[in-house]
Amino acid sequence: MIKNDLFLRALKGETVNRPPVWMMRQAGRFLPEFMEIRKKYDFFTRCRTPELASEITVQPIRRFGMDAAILFSDILVIPQAMNIEVEMKPNFGPYLPNPVRDQKGVDKVIVPNVHETLDYVYKAIKMTKEKLNNEVPLIGFAGSPWTILCYVVQGQGSKTFDKAKEFCFTNPVAAHQLLQKITETTIAYLKAKVAAGVDAVQIFDSWGGMLSPVDYQEFSWQYINQIVEALKDEAPVIAFGKGCWFALEEMANSNVSALGVDWTITPQNARKFTQNKVTLQGNFDPSRLLSPPTEIKKMVHKMIDDFGKDKYIVNLGHGILPNIPLENAKAFIDAVKEYKSIK
Amino acid sequence: MIKNDLFLRALKGETVNRPPVWMMRQAGRFLPEFMEIRKKYDFFTRCRTPELASEITVQPIRRFGMDAAILFSDILVIPQAMNIEVEMKPNFGPYLPNPVRDQKGVDKVIVPNVHETLDYVYKAIKMTKEKLNNEVPLIGFAGSPWTILCYVVQGQGSKTFDKAKEFCFTNPVAAHQLLQKITETTIAYLKAKVAAGVDAVQIFDSWGGMLSPVDYQEFSWQYINQIVEALKDEAPVIAFGKGCWFALEEMANSNVSALGVDWTITPQNARKFTQNKVTLQGNFDPSRLLSPPTEIKKMVHKMIDDFGKDKYIVNLGHGILPNIPLENAKAFIDAVKEYKSIK
Repeated sequence: MIKNDLFLRALKGETVNRPPVWMMRQAGRFLPEFMEIRKKYDFFTRCRTPELASEITVQPIRRFGMDAAILFSDILVIPQAMNIEVEMKPNFGPYLPNPVRDQKGVDKVIVPNVHETLDYVYKAIKMTKEKLNNEVPLIGFAGSPWTILCYVVQGQGSKTFDKAKEFCFTNPVAAHQLLQKITETTIAYLKAKVAAGVDAVQIFDSWGGMLSPVDYQEFSWQYINQIVEALKDEAPVIAFGKGCWFALEEMANSNVSALGVDWTITPQNARKFTQNKVTLQGNFDPSRLLSPPTEIKKMVHKMIDDFGKDKYIVNLGHGILPNIPLENAKAFIDAVKEYKSIK
Repeated sequence: MIKNDLFLRALKGETVNRPPVWMMRQAGRFLPEFMEIRKKYDFFTRCRTPELASEITVQPIRRFGMDAAILFSDILVIPQAMNIEVEMKPNFGPYLPNPVRDQKGVDKVIVPNVHETLDYVYKAIKMTKEKLNNEVPLIGFAGSPWTILCYVVQGQGSKTFDKAKEFCFTNPVAAHQLLQKITETTIAYLKAKVAAGVDAVQIFDSWGGMLSPVDYQEFSWQYINQIVEALKDEAPVIAFGKGCWFALEEMANSNVSALGVDWTITPQNARKFTQNKVTLQGNFDPSRLLSPPTEIKKMVHKMIDDFGKDKYIVNLGHGILPNIPLENAKAFIDAVKEYKSIK
């Protein structure tokens, strides 16, 4: 049904001529056509208006021809739907004026009817699918419950999320209640996204790497795994834990279709830790897209050789940076399309 | 000569009854007696006045009785000595008004006569040694050349040090010149510290974990290793790379006496990656000092059991946080002193 199904075949572990490629945050800030839209509409207006979200989603596909699209949205639409105020401040990032810091705060958080409150997302998915016209698959995403908790408790971005960790370590009962509410909301939300048409889902655990291996199991992975278990029969699930190399072995034993890895792990170690059980996705250092295009192409070819072309999805190790020249992003995508296996 | 030589014996890999303990950043912000001094003197006055720096250094030893003292100072005294302006802004952190961003900037950076420009540090060491009265050893420290470059190029703290990485990836020739100048300054500085009386030195690579394994070798480790080679016959060298788990194997094959590890690696993996070749130091999550004291003690005992009591120095996985209650810090130190090997 989908003309270019390279991405879905890689998720199934099938043999391919070359790996598929997309870039985290490809729909957004480094594209001039996106910046035009950004001038006119604020962040959450872009998320909440299906015409805008779908347009932004297909912009990078038109320009570069990635093998998958990812819906333009934000992980913080979930806490918003759960009755927690979230603002996006220019030159600052997310700001939550009433962070949750105690049991009373947790009690106030609701598990919403996601079909009503997040209706705009499913409309955006349907509109995007029409625009994509079955050319490439569409990915839907959510933040991991731990990563959402980080923002909900800290109230803003942070280098250490010390307040979020303090809350978990001094009030674990309330923390687990909050994580469970986020998990339930996320499961319902991702199921509705699949029903609306996304072909795969990715869970972003941006701040899992702040936790020790023991705390990661307790406060992050068990909740991600609940989502994986609830979704596995509906769509392929990709779990990406930034800095979570230490949990890869356990993650590979779950029902994920793929695991995302960041650039601090070698392809060899990523394969070793996951025992070649799952498809891997990653892991080009986003800052390395500042190297000259000829160097980028060499590094991409080496990366594919090192991961192996099968059970592999080429991506960055985190979101693309706003200051990446278009020709460098193009070199990254083209390098994959030009790839010829040496084996 | 030093009455409590547990720390120095652990660095040599000798068998001990219990491991030694100290805490990164123990001289500073979480202590009320430090906050009294901080009210009266600004940051660099505290660093540059031997009476103040030595007093701050011995404060935690008096209160908690750690097995080693670490000189109160800052890694940014090095760029200051190299003719780069560094301010410490309250509620902001380091600020360098004229960051180095090009070849011209690198050319202006000098390799100073560290005996003259950093004379106040050696005076502080001599005064601290007198105050310590040979009770416990004194550690001197420096930032890794890569970590210093991060601040010198970025101009301030950062979540990604994207400008520092951009500089290295787009202008590697100038970046390597800058790294070499920092390395030479650091070697001379640490040798002078040893001559002034420190019993061991630690190199802090706070931002090494921002780099891929390949880039880490190129932009960080080779320079740290130059320092290790230059210092190894003068004093034991501890290298601590936050987030640098991926380089531990290579680091363990060098002439370091010990390697610091952060809390994202299990003791078992830390031993495995370093093949039990060197003493390890770490790795309690600083945020976990917010747990109740009884829990802290249990976690510390488990940590010692997991690392093994020999070739091990108990520490945090990064600096102590400002909001840690005194009784929790005390529980951490006491837990080590009360430790009885189960084996």
